[in-house]
Parts: sequence; structure tokens; C-alpha cells
Amino acid sequence: MAGPISLGEIASRLGGRVVGDAGVLVGQVASLEHAGTSDIAFFSGARYKAQLAATHAAAVILGPQAEALTPLPRIVSDNPYAYFARVARLLNPAPVPQAGVHAAAHVDARARIADSARVDARAVVEAGAEIDERAWIGAGCYIGAAASVGADSRLHPGVVVYEGCHLGKRAIVHSGAVIGADGFGMALEAGRWLKVPQIGRVLIGDDVEIGANTTIDRGTVDDTVIEDGVKLDNQVQIGHNCRIGAHTAMAGCAGVAGSAQIGKRCTLGGAAVVLGHLSLCDDVHVSAATVITRSIREPGTYTGVYPFADNASWARNAAQLRHLAKERKKRNA
Amino acid sequence: MAGPISLGEIASRLGGRVVGDAGVLVGQVASLEHAGTSDIAFFSGARYKAQLAATHAAAVILGPQAEALTPLPRIVSDNPYAYFARVARLLNPAPVPQAGVHAAAHVDARARIADSARVDARAVVEAGAEIDERAWIGAGCYIGAAASVGADSRLHPGVVVYEGCHLGKRAIVHSGAVIGADGFGMALEAGRWLKVPQIGRVLIGDDVEIGANTTIDRGTVDDTVIEDGVKLDNQVQIGHNCRIGAHTAMAGCAGVAGSAQIGKRCTLGGAAVVLGHLSLCDDVHVSAATVITRSIREPGTYTGVYPFADNASWARNAAQLRHLAKERKKRNA
Amino acid sequence: MAGPISLGEIASRLGGRVVGDAGVLVGQVASLEHAGTSDIAFFSGARYKAQLAATHAAAVILGPQAEALTPLPRIVSDNPYAYFARVARLLNPAPVPQAGVHAAAHVDARARIADSARVDARAVVEAGAEIDERAWIGAGCYIGAAASVGADSRLHPGVVVYEGCHLGKRAIVHSGAVIGADGFGMALEAGRWLKVPQIGRVLIGDDVEIGANTTIDRGTVDDTVIEDGVKLDNQVQIGHNCRIGAHTAMAGCAGVAGSAQIGKRCTLGGAAVVLGHLSLCDDVHVSAATVITRSIREPGTYTGVYPFADNASWARNAAQLRHLAKERKKRNA
Repeated sequence: MAGPISLGEIASRLGGRVVGDAGVLVGQVASLEHAGTSDIAFFSGARYKAQLAATHAAAVILGPQAEALTPLPRIVSDNPYAYFARVARLLNPAPVPQAGVHAAAHVDARARIADSARVDARAVVEAGAEIDERAWIGAGCYIGAAASVGADSRLHPGVVVYEGCHLGKRAIVHSGAVIGADGFGMALEAGRWLKVPQIGRVLIGDDVEIGANTTIDRGTVDDTVIEDGVKLDNQVQIGHNCRIGAHTAMAGCAGVAGSAQIGKRCTLGGAAVVLGHLSLCDDVHVSAATVITRSIREPGTYTGVYPFADNASWARNAAQLRHLAKERKKRNA
Repeated sequence: MAGPISLGEIASRLGGRVVGDAGVLVGQVASLEHAGTSDIAFFSGARYKAQLAATHAAAVILGPQAEALTPLPRIVSDNPYAYFARVARLLNPAPVPQAGVHAAAHVDARARIADSARVDARAVVEAGAEIDERAWIGAGCYIGAAASVGADSRLHPGVVVYEGCHLGKRAIVHSGAVIGADGFGMALEAGRWLKVPQIGRVLIGDDVEIGANTTIDRGTVDDTVIEDGVKLDNQVQIGHNCRIGAHTAMAGCAGVAGSAQIGKRCTLGGAAVVLGHLSLCDDVHVSAATVITRSIREPGTYTGVYPFADNASWARNAAQLRHLAKERKKRNA
Repeated sequence: MAGPISLGEIASRLGGRVVGDAGVLVGQVASLEHAGTSDIAFFSGARYKAQLAATHAAAVILGPQAEALTPLPRIVSDNPYAYFARVARLLNPAPVPQAGVHAAAHVDARARIADSARVDARAVVEAGAEIDERAWIGAGCYIGAAASVGADSRLHPGVVVYEGCHLGKRAIVHSGAVIGADGFGMALEAGRWLKVPQIGRVLIGDDVEIGANTTIDRGTVDDTVIEDGVKLDNQVQIGHNCRIGAHTAMAGCAGVAGSAQIGKRCTLGGAAVVLGHLSLCDDVHVSAATVITRSIREPGTYTGVYPFADNASWARNAAQLRHLAKERKKRNA
């Protein structure tokens, strides 16, 4: 559904506790700062107190500890951000694709497209590919031979899935993502690089989201595996033979080199890098822009960011940094 | 115009002061090193003195302090690089698109294409989209529902603009750029990630250039905003809800995480990273590969690059680095 | 050929020395861990001894020093990884493209397509472009005006080659790569950026592989040059006017800023960065995530990675790091 709904109706569908007038109607979610009088906003924490005081929102979603901070009609939830996500979805239901293959799509006769699936203009689906129930293949996507896309998945325009790769159910893949390009396998022979054929696949579980221009390489001989519930932001790079554990999330520009094994429920901050052949156990959190250079066997948060400074201070400190070992030696001499 | 033009004619159009024979004809711009005898080259500074002495160029553009460094016919300008840019454009005018929608384009009947606009083969323009005067939509581009592209803009082949996003006038967007994919908004609930619908848009001002494979995410509820005159190089990532101030430029592979606010006239060097929710004031310059981890309130240049060294020296220093705090404690004990 | 082949037959084609039953048939390459009883696997070194002992492979490829580590039929080679690459190719021959232009491709009448070349659905080839013998242009690729693709090259779906750029023989280009977009040349004039027209080209030698979503910019006035045998992984960025020496390889997310000159046989690790206008001599190896900030004139391995730690240790050390110069001054006072 979309359109105005009362706080009481929201709570009856999603749980949570209404404080104040449960009959207040809201039609859209908004930020505290820009909410209009028919919007419901979300209070995420103390730094937004001034915005909460000044908001024009009709109602607010917040946590129990913030319940008394506003006189506005409100819904109290133990997980207000997740609650907000559910309200946003309630008011903005995902579009249901109209079934059918567009006349300007190019589908090989040996591909199997479910009756309820949708294939948009200019998409190409090769022989042996399978598009499951209610999946939506956007304009200009390419689905290689014998590849498959699970039920209720949505590929935005311009996604490329190489031959033989598999996406699970409810995948969301954004434009420009490339799934299944060759891994970077090169053997040096007499000063030249000899290509190692990449005959593995990419296997992607259910409920995976893949950001714009993200790349996931096929395995050398075994498969590259992305487990259920993994979320990858834009411009992430996953090398060949990696396994990314279930419900792990990576922010934009993160990179995982070949044959790395990342555990379940891990997070990589933006631009974080994991070198090749390493293992990270479950529940490891890597800070943004941190480079992981050895395996991690204990859950926890790991960081390695060089502190920035004004340019002159940085230059002075960096000059010292180059001589740490020498200085140490002198002191110990 | 293109084709041979005299120094005098150039100066009468673009300003600057001719020294030497103003009747010399030049047909193309070139580097000092590779210029032929009908080319005009550009002297950018002292490190190219030897090339200036050896050049075969017919004429040179340079600053007043370099005026005496060559006997060649020359044009003296206070901003020789900008002058060079203008001469290059004079000799290489931007192609004027032939108006019309290619027969192999797919334009929804409810889209509005200006008569003077051009839509190339395989492009898709969805319902409610607007393509303004003289805009040029390259082959295979995708313009989503209710999106708009301003007058005199050029989208090179393969650009994706998601629904509802707006580009201003005179935009230049290179291939593979993705504008308006979902921001990376995920709420954790019982060990799983719940998608936060991204209902904001991307709003892009006038005179913006966007590099190849750059990604700009739509806002969560408010819009992601790119102000006038912003220039983004290739493979830049702009997260949801960001605002990038007018005339800010970012070099290749720079990344700005969600909800960051970047001021006007800032520059980010290549691969620089700004973490989420931070604010940078106007006129901040971030060096290449620097990670900004807190807000910046003073204009200036900021740097944080770990100094590289030969591998053995690095290993020795890095070993010391890990123990700085302990060493300090010992010294103070 | 594909299909079962005996060790003896392999050795007669590729060299190497068979130890044990030369009549053993193998049908596919596999990892030690997942090999079945008709597969041949590859032993890459001591850390895989346990997997070697437990493998179900029919045969193994290994180096002379490992010859005695298994009783399995085996082929001994001085360069077992390169040998493995050759066996993998033998068992998985590259597909030979069926010649012809797909009915749903759009080829300008003034383009020249070799009779033996293949152009897939939705590809666009502009006027004056040349596609040489046996080259394969994948679905949805864009080949700009007067661009050329050398013999036996393969462009996977969705590659963009801007006008006037040249690829040599046997190129492999993965999806989403953009070759020849404008370099990032902007002159500052009265607080605004003035575009410097980019009229150079990209010239790519023979035997080059380019990864998914990698970008290589055209030169400002001279050309950007990628010499023979260069291998670029995914999401690599090469700025305008660069020259990349023959047989140099760059791992994923590496970036080379404009006008840098990289020597022959260099390697850049993943996410390594080389700043603009620098020169690296031949045989320089840059470690992953290292930022090169000055030219390198001696072959060798160079590193500059900030060591990561658990978050609390990192915070303590980073706090010290900010004061290195001050501490030094105090000690010397």
C-alpha cells in the first residue's frame, strides 16, 4: 500500500508502541529537517536533538530512551532504524514488474523465462539461461549462457552476468555491476604473463544486494561464493575464489583480493582492503580505509588509518616516521 | 572553427599578448615534445625548459615570467593553462549533435524529447523523462522514468540515470557512470540486514562533468545534491545524501561516504576518502590518498599519506610504529 | 581439444616430465581440495601439503622440489603454475567466435568488419571503425568512430571504446571497461573549472588484458599508451597521458594518475596508487595499497601500508603518531 495511514494502523502491522494521537495520518517518510506536516520522520540519536525540536513532521519514530524528547505523536521501537525501514517500505512498496519480454529484448530460444518474469528493452539473455518467477531483468542487461537469476530478483539496467553464474532469490543488483568476469590469474613465464583460464563460476545466495559498478570475479577452478544476505555497496571488488560469509556487508569501494575468505556477519568500511588468501573469522569489523594484511582469528573491530593533518604538520611527522627504526636503534645504542 | 588560424586572430578572440610574428598560422595544439611545425604548444613551467628549447612548435603559450625563455612566436597570458584550454577548444570545437531520435533507440511515448536533442541507437528513455534542447544521449544510455537531462548536455554511451534524477545544463557524463542507484542504507535486525528504501533523488546543477564509471547514489529521503560546476573524475563514489559544493573537483577513485557535506571550491586528490556524516568547509584541499576522519572547519590543505619506502625499510619502521604508545609509556615511566 | 587426455599426451604437447602412470586420463583441472577422480590438480607450495595428501585428484602438477611429496601420477615442471595454465587451456579451449554481424547489432555502413569477425546483438560500431580478423565484439559493446580492434581480440559485453582509440591483437577486455574517456584536465579560471579538450587517443598494444569496469583515459594532446602484454585487473584507473610499459601488471583497484610513466615488467598490488607526473623505472614492484609519491629509479619492491591493529591499539598509536615531530623536538631540546 501507499498513501496516508494512521500511526495506529502502522503499529498494528509492524508492532511498536504509539505515544500520543494514534489517529494521526502520515503519507511519507522524511528527514526531521525537511519533513512536511504529513510526514513521519526518524530520530537517530542525540546529535539530532535540535532538529527534533524544530521538525514539522506529523510524527516521529524513536527509541524508548528518546521517548520523552518530543511532544509529537510518535512510535517507540526498540530498533527505530529498522522500524523506519519497514514504514518506508509500507509507504513505498517496491514496484511489481509487469510480466513479459519486451519486443526490443533479445532472448535466445533456448533460454527459459518464467511467465511471471519481466525482461526489458535491449536486454540480452543467452542460450540455457534461466530467469525465475517474477524476476525483473532491466534494460540493456546481459545474462550469459547457462546463467540463472532467482525468483523475485531485480537487475537494474546495464548489469552483466557472465555465463554459468547464479544469483539466488530476491537479489537486487544495481547498474554497471559485473558478475563473473575472469579472475586475475596470470602465470609469469619468460618475462610474459600467461593467462590462467578461469573456469569456476560465481554463486550468489538469496537476499543479496550488489551496488552499482561492483565487480565479482569467477573462480579459477572452484567457484567464488557470496552467501545469503550479503550486502555490497558500489564499486566493491571481489576477487576470484573468495567466499563471503552470510550477512556480511561492505561499504563503497571496499576490495577483497583473490582467494580471501570472509566470515559471517562481518563488515568492511568504505575503501577497506583485504589482501589475498587471508581468512577473517565471523564477526570481524574492518574500519573504513583499513588494509588487512594478515588473517584475523578473533572477532572485533580492526583499524589502520593514517591520521591526516594540515599539510605542514603531516610533512613534519611523516619525515620522523621514515626514521622510527633508526631512532630506536640510536636510543638503544 | 577549426583549421589554421594566426596568433593575431587568436589574441583578438581570446585576449593575451602576441610577442613575435603575429601572422604565424597554427592548426592544432600539441605538447612541446611532440609538436610539429604547424602546432601551438603550452609551456607549463620550469621543469619543461629543455623541451621548450628543443620544440618544433610554430608558437608557444606561456606566462609573463617565461616570456623571455624562447625566441619563438608566442602568446603571453596571465593564466596560460586556461588560455591553452581556450585555444584547444577553438581548434577543436565540440561536435554539434545532429538532432533526432535514432530508429534503434527506444523512447517511451510519454517522454519529452526536445526537437533539437539527439538520442542515439539503443538508448532507452522511459515515461515522463525530459531531454532538453540540444542534449545528446549517447548509444545505449538509459534515462529512467521522470528523469531529466538539461540543455546542451552530453551523455556518452552507456550512462545510466535512474528514475527521477535531474541533470542540469551543459553536463558532460562519461560512459559507465551511474546516477541515482540506491544508497547503501541497511538496518540490522536480528542479525540480518533490512533494506531502507531510498526514495530521495540525485539533483545535479549546471556545468557538471562526471567521469567514466563514477557512481552517485540517490538520497534516502532527502536528495543527494551536486552543485553547479562540480567536476568528478573517473571511478568516484558519492554516497547517499551528500551535498557537494559548487566548483568542487575530485580526482579519480575519490570516495565520499553517505551524508557528508563538502563545501564549495574544494578539491579531493585521487583516491582520497571522506567518511560519512562529516562536513568540510569551503576551500578545503585534500591530498591524494588521504582519509578524512573528522570534519574540517578551516580552509587549507590536509594530508595523511603513509610514506612508502623500499620494502625492508618499511617493514622495520612499521614494526616500530605498532609500539609507539608502549614506547611512550616506557619513556614516561 | 577438450575431453580426457593422458598425462603422456599432455607431456608430449607441453613438455614436463611424467612420474608414475603416464596413461592416466584427466578431463579437467581442479583444486587439490575439490578435485574429483578424473581431474588434474596443481600443487603450489608447502602450505597446501595437507590438501595434497588428501586430494582425490587423478594426477598433480608440481615443481621438482615437491616431486616426492605424493605417490600420485604427476607431471613435474620447473614452472608448475604456468604449466597448469597451459593444461587448463588445453582442456578448456577458448571459444572460437562464429563469424558474422548479429541482426540486432548496429554497424555503420562506413565501418569495416573483417569477414571472420563477430559482432553480437545490440553492439554499436560507428563510422570508420575497424574490427579485424576473428575479433569478437560482445553484446552491447560500443566502438566509436575511427576506433579499431585488432585481430583475435575479445570484448566481453558492454565494453565502450571511444572514438579514435586502438586495441592491438589478442586483447581481452572485460565488461564495463571504458577506453578513451576524456582525461581529467581542468584549468582554474576566476574560481571556475574550464575544460581542457582531450584530443589525444588511447593506444593499446598486443596481448593486453583489461578487467571489468577498468577505465583508461585518452591523452590531452599526446596519446595514452599501454604497451604489449600489459595486464590490468578490475576497476583499475589509468589517467591521461600515461605510458604503461610492456608486461606490467596491476591488480584490482590500482590507480595511476595522469602523465605518470610506468616502466616495463612492473607490478602494482591491489589498490596501489601512483601519483601524477611520476616515473617508475623498469622492474618496480609496488605492494598492495601503497601510495607512490615520488619517482622511483631503482628496481625493487616498495611498500607503504599503515599497519592495522585492534581498534583500541590503533587509536593509542595513532595519537602518538600525530606528535612524532613534537616529541623529537622535545628530546633534542
